[in-house]
Amino acid sequence: MKIIAHIYTDMNEKFGLPRQSGLVKGLTGRIVFEPEYRNRDAFAGLEGYSHIWIIWQFSESIREGFTPTVRPPRLGGNTHMGVFATRSPFRPNPIGLSSVRLESVEYDTAEGPQLIVSGVDMMSGTPIYDIKPYLSYTDSHPEAVCGFADKVYNHSLEVVFPKDLLDRIPEEKQSALIELLEQDIRPGYKRTQMDEERIYGVSYAGFNVCFKVKEDVLMVVGVD
Amino acid sequence: MKIIAHIYTDMNEKFGLPRQSGLVKGLTGRIVFEPEYRNRDAFAGLEGYSHIWIIWQFSESIREGFTPTVRPPRLGGNTHMGVFATRSPFRPNPIGLSSVRLESVEYDTAEGPQLIVSGVDMMSGTPIYDIKPYLSYTDSHPEAVCGFADKVYNHSLEVVFPKDLLDRIPEEKQSALIELLEQDIRPGYKRTQMDEERIYGVSYAGFNVCFKVKEDVLMVVGVD
Repeated sequence: MKIIAHIYTDMNEKFGLPRQSGLVKGLTGRIVFEPEYRNRDAFAGLEGYSHIWIIWQFSESIREGFTPTVRPPRLGGNTHMGVFATRSPFRPNPIGLSSVRLESVEYDTAEGPQLIVSGVDMMSGTPIYDIKPYLSYTDSHPEAVCGFADKVYNHSLEVVFPKDLLDRIPEEKQSALIELLEQDIRPGYKRTQMDEERIYGVSYAGFNVCFKVKEDVLMVVGVD
Repeated sequence: MKIIAHIYTDMNEKFGLPRQSGLVKGLTGRIVFEPEYRNRDAFAGLEGYSHIWIIWQFSESIREGFTPTVRPPRLGGNTHMGVFATRSPFRPNPIGLSSVRLESVEYDTAEGPQLIVSGVDMMSGTPIYDIKPYLSYTDSHPEAVCGFADKVYNHSLEVVFPKDLLDRIPEEKQSALIELLEQDIRPGYKRTQMDEERIYGVSYAGFNVCFKVKEDVLMVVGVD
């Protein structure tokens, strides 16, 4: 299986990554292809699509051996589920699947055609195996029943971001950061412990953003 | 990249395969896992999902070298499109992506847990890399704009299937076969030539089903 491209995003660490694609719509990525695929003909027609699939490598989560169950963070981190009933990265093959919005195709960069996408859930530098157009007639099932995921995905936090701290973030990157924090990125098992004094730090666009959470309110306490 | 399972369907040849998943809802498949993954714990919770993703190998379409464009059959077979703007099997990595309906999980077979799915678009024996639950909140984009695919996917044929020929097919397999023929499975470049006398044969559930097409009507002329 060949790496055909890498995606570059504002997320430099695993902690804080959105749990799925599309949850943080403002989080963007730039897909840079390997030299072999820097051919504009290979992208002809792609601009006509609003969304694409990225099939990528869980490069930070490769484990030897097969573990049949995982503990999804969205269930608090203590409930076992079958790995094939989850989107956990710890699976037989480290394949991630994300649908993202295609913002633009930039043909004339120094490194060949590049794709600008939004709603990403990948660390910067993540290797990519394939790009496919999203076909709503075959890929979209809004009526699909989604097991335990139906019950938990809506949880979100109110974010309090003092203006003097927010001003340290470039303006065009502020809204995605707030969206990200609203998702409640704390690990599940920590959340159940309700440690209100604990300070978390998330790396975003080169900043270390520190925050505390009390009940459903997240307070940013530092930006370095 | 490990093969974790194979899917067994009524399609034994590449010719006649549905162009995408979900187009022939009656076409079913049985997913049989490799011994290492025959562990019921690995599937716990999957029954709660109505749809799953299958990430599979285009095992019949592996080519060396990279060709940047393909000619989609749905565009008649003569128009070049960028490979990344299509779902063509001839891509840098032979990875197929299909969302199918999960009909049931059979835990107690002689070969471990098996999944029964419908709406398949794979040949019998196709190797599988991964199974993931379909999450409508992240995977479903009914509003997605789908380039040239929006304009062509609706084409279908009227199927005339004489009763004496249809009776040779087991009753439970008849409706999927008719659905399949309605899709117009002829190769694109043949279709544009309008060869009304040509007899096509498609292999389905062990039968060879012969037919002719005149304008938008498909006539079955033989079942062996």
